[in-house]
Amino acid sequence: MRISSFSIHPVAVADPPLRSSYGRHAPYALRTILVLTTTDGITGISEAHGGDGSLAALEAVRPLVEGMDPFHLHALWEKWGKPSTQGDRSQTWLVPGENPHDARTRAFAAVEAACLDIIGKAVNQPVCDLLGGRARDAAPFSAYLFYKHGGGGGLGPDARDDEYGECLTPESMVRQCRQMIATYGFREIKLKGGVLEPALEIETIRLLRDAFGSTFPLRIDPNCAWSVETSVHVGIALQEELSGGGYLEDPTSSMEGMAQVRRQLLAQGIDTPLASNVAVTGLNDVVPAWGEDAVQVVLSDPHYWGGIRAVQRLSFLCEALGMGVSMHSNNHLGVSMMIMAHACAASPAMRFACDTHYPWQSAQDEVLAGGRVKFVDGAVVIPAKPGLGVDLDMDQVARLEERYHQLPYRKRDDAEEMRRHVDPSWQRVLPRW
Amino acid sequence: MRISSFSIHPVAVADPPLRSSYGRHAPYALRTILVLTTTDGITGISEAHGGDGSLAALEAVRPLVEGMDPFHLHALWEKWGKPSTQGDRSQTWLVPGENPHDARTRAFAAVEAACLDIIGKAVNQPVCDLLGGRARDAAPFSAYLFYKHGGGGGLGPDARDDEYGECLTPESMVRQCRQMIATYGFREIKLKGGVLEPALEIETIRLLRDAFGSTFPLRIDPNCAWSVETSVHVGIALQEELSGGGYLEDPTSSMEGMAQVRRQLLAQGIDTPLASNVAVTGLNDVVPAWGEDAVQVVLSDPHYWGGIRAVQRLSFLCEALGMGVSMHSNNHLGVSMMIMAHACAASPAMRFACDTHYPWQSAQDEVLAGGRVKFVDGAVVIPAKPGLGVDLDMDQVARLEERYHQLPYRKRDDAEEMRRHVDPSWQRVLPRW
Repeated sequence: MRISSFSIHPVAVADPPLRSSYGRHAPYALRTILVLTTTDGITGISEAHGGDGSLAALEAVRPLVEGMDPFHLHALWEKWGKPSTQGDRSQTWLVPGENPHDARTRAFAAVEAACLDIIGKAVNQPVCDLLGGRARDAAPFSAYLFYKHGGGGGLGPDARDDEYGECLTPESMVRQCRQMIATYGFREIKLKGGVLEPALEIETIRLLRDAFGSTFPLRIDPNCAWSVETSVHVGIALQEELSGGGYLEDPTSSMEGMAQVRRQLLAQGIDTPLASNVAVTGLNDVVPAWGEDAVQVVLSDPHYWGGIRAVQRLSFLCEALGMGVSMHSNNHLGVSMMIMAHACAASPAMRFACDTHYPWQSAQDEVLAGGRVKFVDGAVVIPAKPGLGVDLDMDQVARLEERYHQLPYRKRDDAEEMRRHVDPSWQRVLPRW
Repeated sequence: MRISSFSIHPVAVADPPLRSSYGRHAPYALRTILVLTTTDGITGISEAHGGDGSLAALEAVRPLVEGMDPFHLHALWEKWGKPSTQGDRSQTWLVPGENPHDARTRAFAAVEAACLDIIGKAVNQPVCDLLGGRARDAAPFSAYLFYKHGGGGGLGPDARDDEYGECLTPESMVRQCRQMIATYGFREIKLKGGVLEPALEIETIRLLRDAFGSTFPLRIDPNCAWSVETSVHVGIALQEELSGGGYLEDPTSSMEGMAQVRRQLLAQGIDTPLASNVAVTGLNDVVPAWGEDAVQVVLSDPHYWGGIRAVQRLSFLCEALGMGVSMHSNNHLGVSMMIMAHACAASPAMRFACDTHYPWQSAQDEVLAGGRVKFVDGAVVIPAKPGLGVDLDMDQVARLEERYHQLPYRKRDDAEEMRRHVDPSWQRVLPRW
């Protein structure tokens, strides 16, 4: 069995004006759908980050993939996938998917998922069962809350309903969370912070705790918006609220900054774990982060960490080190949703609910045949179908691809979007507080 | 597909009187052959350590395996395979296969290999290609030289020819090595030391270097027989001979002892890597060994490290840490030979030739249908057949099993064998020199 066709579909997906320390989401998020076909007619699908950078990386790997045996992934890993040890791989300044130092690793990850989908279909097994077998039958995700402006994303006739409305206050975030939990059944909660004054974000977390109680673990992620001092202040203020399965994610930038926050919190008797997908972005970063006690929960990602097997390796490494492991998310469609679910199911040590942006996309822009992935009690059940367990609706792909080609931008730039809509002089300043 | 039958065959294999710091090999080595059959009639085979301990561990895991889906290995890993974090898992005092703290992990490994053999046959792929794909088409092994008494192993009518003869001097070791390389084509050389006075073992390595030249990397492994001081002395004496792909393996016991040897050698400007399968025996030991710079090359083992996937995890971890990785061996038959070859082929970072005792067993006691695994230029070529790529000769298994039941011993005890044949008062003393 050989790969005989390699087909790349850049797509644009309506995305609400979500806020983070990077700025504001543009009306359309960019993603890439990859379709591989084999000589015996099996199709494997995948999803990757979007825009020119991702497309170029996929085009560059294409000659290695055409003609390849989909089982022979390690050979491609050695030639192409291995994370670079050169350059700054941290995500401090670059949004995930825009870091040139992991462009090849991300392209490998996209190819790996499509190959695993092919293999699963060839041998009639779900992807997670090709990788040592499921450690769980359903992958739990958390309610991923965002401060946001009004609007559901998209432009003109493509504009989408805004089911969540504007949310720029602590009170409205409780409403957003109730609504999301009512729809998806999530049992853990993550707040994207770094947007409002820290006092307001502290207040938001407190209101969430009041509203949902201590059985819903709480996390906050300001994407490095805070100084060490502010991070410690928030850690102290939210000692109670972030306990019991919660964590404080990337409060400040750099391994050294994270280690300082950890030391100062421990000195106060507070052992809230620090999570990160910014200071640690590859297997080579984990042991240093562990050595400095800068990170206690590593946030994997089957896209930029180099695939589902790379997430498994990370999961076993974290377990060996006594670190926790969870999963980071970017805007994504249903194919990535299933890649993430299989990665979680096949990683025994992944015991936190993972992140997903999936609630922020809608059926209108889903590329899956049969519509959106369904959640049961906040979890994605591994389908009783081979491979990733989902198929593409190629009409939808064509529609979103046409839209992509009409867009004036080819990369994610949340700062530009802030300047356009919120503050013409806006710059990303770290730390902001 | 479910596992419907779980069949255990203890076997005894003629073994020459090889020497090490543990003592002397008994006339028969003990191994266990495992045969799993599925509801749809596919057979998977495996091989494990032998004797009562291994049999008890396999019997104990049997209820979890009968009825299991062979793809669902992680669930068994979680319930049964995970290395214990309790107790001393080092191999300082216990021969591999006799450490109760890894008995469950070893039983898991045996089941995993048989399940992978089943899966490979079910989906028509070699085992290494089920695991991310081969990083190489052939697994290179080294010439594993032993000081030995005369005799080919076995007793009475079962006694075997001794093709290598007595070898208890430096000069005869050169002869042994020539003979082994002429037969198998090995391109790297490992000497089991800890048997003669260190001065004679230094002399042995020097004669090997003189005879084979610097293109054949050289290793010596005295199994912790030396003090820190003697280890450093040998490291200095063999600085030149162990360079260029060589290493000094487990010269002394304990992580701290190894770290001392390393520090003292570095202080002399000698950076000969220290290898170990004694101080580090599981994923949890690797980072501490790296942190103390006690070990630079970790010796995996798909049997007691917990299977082929565990070797892969180790391989990726070592790569991330900048450590080398190779593979340890125990006496074994052809099934283990293939398990080791697939583990090596599926682990990209495994760039040293691996250990194998295979030359010390013979066709007379091979359990494989069609006879012994063949070597090409010192390497085992991955067969173009599904699964492990080999089948059992059940008549041979029955013969070796009958012999097992006639033996008076049920565990490996090299010290007892020394007392019986060499020195009635012999005790294993560490360090001996």
